[in-house]
Amino acid sequence: MDIQRYMTGLGKNARAASRELARANTGTKNSALFAIADSIIASQARLIEENSKDLEAGKAGGLDDALLDRLMLNEERIQGMAEGLRQIAALADPVGEITGLNYRPSGIQVGKMRVPLGVIGIIYESRPNVTADAAGLCLKAGNAAILRGGSEAAHSNNAIATCIKSGLSKANLPSTAVQVIEVTDRAAVGELITMPQYVDVIVPRGGKSLIERISAEATVPVIKHLHGICHVYIHEKADISKAIRIAFNAKTHRYGVCNAMETLLADAAIAGRVLPQLAEQYRKEGVELRGCRKTRELIGGIKAATEEDWDTEYLAPILSIRIVAGLDEALEHLHNHSSGHTDAIVTEDLGAARRFLSEVDSSSVMVNASTRFADGFEYGLGAEIGISTDKIHARGPVGLEGLTSQKFIVIGDGHVRE
Amino acid sequence: MDIQRYMTGLGKNARAASRELARANTGTKNSALFAIADSIIASQARLIEENSKDLEAGKAGGLDDALLDRLMLNEERIQGMAEGLRQIAALADPVGEITGLNYRPSGIQVGKMRVPLGVIGIIYESRPNVTADAAGLCLKAGNAAILRGGSEAAHSNNAIATCIKSGLSKANLPSTAVQVIEVTDRAAVGELITMPQYVDVIVPRGGKSLIERISAEATVPVIKHLHGICHVYIHEKADISKAIRIAFNAKTHRYGVCNAMETLLADAAIAGRVLPQLAEQYRKEGVELRGCRKTRELIGGIKAATEEDWDTEYLAPILSIRIVAGLDEALEHLHNHSSGHTDAIVTEDLGAARRFLSEVDSSSVMVNASTRFADGFEYGLGAEIGISTDKIHARGPVGLEGLTSQKFIVIGDGHVRE
Repeated sequence: MDIQRYMTGLGKNARAASRELARANTGTKNSALFAIADSIIASQARLIEENSKDLEAGKAGGLDDALLDRLMLNEERIQGMAEGLRQIAALADPVGEITGLNYRPSGIQVGKMRVPLGVIGIIYESRPNVTADAAGLCLKAGNAAILRGGSEAAHSNNAIATCIKSGLSKANLPSTAVQVIEVTDRAAVGELITMPQYVDVIVPRGGKSLIERISAEATVPVIKHLHGICHVYIHEKADISKAIRIAFNAKTHRYGVCNAMETLLADAAIAGRVLPQLAEQYRKEGVELRGCRKTRELIGGIKAATEEDWDTEYLAPILSIRIVAGLDEALEHLHNHSSGHTDAIVTEDLGAARRFLSEVDSSSVMVNASTRFADGFEYGLGAEIGISTDKIHARGPVGLEGLTSQKFIVIGDGHVRE
Repeated sequence: MDIQRYMTGLGKNARAASRELARANTGTKNSALFAIADSIIASQARLIEENSKDLEAGKAGGLDDALLDRLMLNEERIQGMAEGLRQIAALADPVGEITGLNYRPSGIQVGKMRVPLGVIGIIYESRPNVTADAAGLCLKAGNAAILRGGSEAAHSNNAIATCIKSGLSKANLPSTAVQVIEVTDRAAVGELITMPQYVDVIVPRGGKSLIERISAEATVPVIKHLHGICHVYIHEKADISKAIRIAFNAKTHRYGVCNAMETLLADAAIAGRVLPQLAEQYRKEGVELRGCRKTRELIGGIKAATEEDWDTEYLAPILSIRIVAGLDEALEHLHNHSSGHTDAIVTEDLGAARRFLSEVDSSSVMVNASTRFADGFEYGLGAEIGISTDKIHARGPVGLEGLTSQKFIVIGDGHVRE
């Protein structure tokens, strides 16, 4: 098979479909979302059957239990996919919104109109529900999508793709508006990320090595999320009970997620009143603590944190703790070690909160809240296609708006430049 | 000289300076802008002296008159640079603006705060005034800048850089907030565009080949403007006098600019009433016309337009003309040949205007106005660092806002995720 030719074909289809999608009205797009949801529900038996092929192959191939669980589709998860699509239909359509249309001294009116990006390429791993989620978000934002799931989920993804195509057709939208790459050859990804004439942006979702490789090789712009080394900083003027509640929740609510806290910073002036209590709570949860010298003087029997610890995303029940002299030292630590994902301060001091909000250069900066809130649903975006740690275009949770752009519009009445 | 080491040094300085700039308040940044303006005025004699070295070398090196004119600094242009900086000081500071701060069902408040991008690398050619303009815009938006001007303007740029450093110091900002690359070795550009750890975005300004080379090689995101193949489309329901005024202005107001019209489209139903009159006006101005078959039937004695003409940015007194059947054919022509810069429709028909605004995928889309209005000053941005034909991040004229990003901010009162 000629992969380049195959991918060029998908690209051309997507570019053509993107024009139809860009002018599709909200009602049509919502009809498609509902029709896809209905088709997924109606195809439940077939989805489970196709999924079982992936599960069997996965078991035979030695996938671990966690990966098999991520891969698995059951009735509840299929209902969840359909429900997700209906929720996307309920979100406001970002396309066509005109903002800031004002008269200029020349007499022309100038404003901005929100428009789809065009064609979005999404590369993801194992979870088949991403196929429906990503397709739904791209569709609502008026974009065509080319989806590349993991080879371990190929049967499941292709079955979901059939439901998507059926729903698109029912709404009289081109079935090429969402295309799933059906070859598992790695070269297909290489093509996808280097055809800017057909693809406007790439969203990789998956492990750090996948994302680093894609970013290094792509000539299409990438909206990416590299890693989440998130911090909670307990300022000397923190309320003790809020500090303990937030630091405990940020670490233990879920371990394997990008918005979990990996390093706790505490002012020396307050450390003695919070760290011993917190350490006791963490111990009960089975969280391994690693501390700086001062932390170890305060909490006995824990490992020393090395320089490497400050730069590690554990995604596990491990926490590094550092005692700092004050806000300046905390900001310096964040400058050197934060991955720019999410960092929080706990304080009752308005001046400290104001400086922290302004000076911490992360996609989400929080005051007196758990880093676990960094999430498209919690932020009211409705859904997210990922969390960007880039500064360009979209930063933080990327919802429908992040899948659009804005163009300038100018309205005159025969105006010319003098 | 070790270019890599030199550039790494500039990068580290810029990164460090960007932190100070990000937290500098509006008053401090404005003081620096005024101090740089004052320094430029005070250094007028030295600037003219240094510029004369560039001019002499340029003459000796065989630069043509147009390039020498672009390179030349005189009293008026030096006053203009200073005035430009004072105008930037008068613009609203985009940094720190908080928008959409709303309560979520969980009780947290979520909003966005506008923040600097960090470090901006700007690569430009011949005109030394860009050194002051670009430095001023980056500074006001809270970014550090690394500037790389053309080697033909090296003396002028270094003299302007001395004024900038003096102004920064007077305002107690780090003089490394704006650095001009002082080596003329091409390898310096290669380093600049491949150090994402120190540079957040590259803005290339110059010829198409320069920009294509930079885009292909950069690993830092690029805000670029490739070319401007701009169109005016005269719809059958156009007002004849508006159509003639706009089409004449869009072509003849200035030839060598990216927002000049390069192709005129006209509906067959109206072509006979506008094209002959327009052709007469263009002839008087010395504009060479090239037309499709139908156009040539209507206007005698003009060259045939080839397929290549529809994809050519003339930047010269040349215009290609095509007669189309109606709006659909015009949209199709734009889809195939517009460079996505600026396209305008002339019509009194609301439905046609609405479709054109919505379906044309260009950075500026206009109704009844000359494409020449596509400009940061005309749009009220105050100034522009360039016009982006990309879809990601900034599209169209890029002013202060395009040199910033937005981060999410979250304010709670001890809130945790349940």
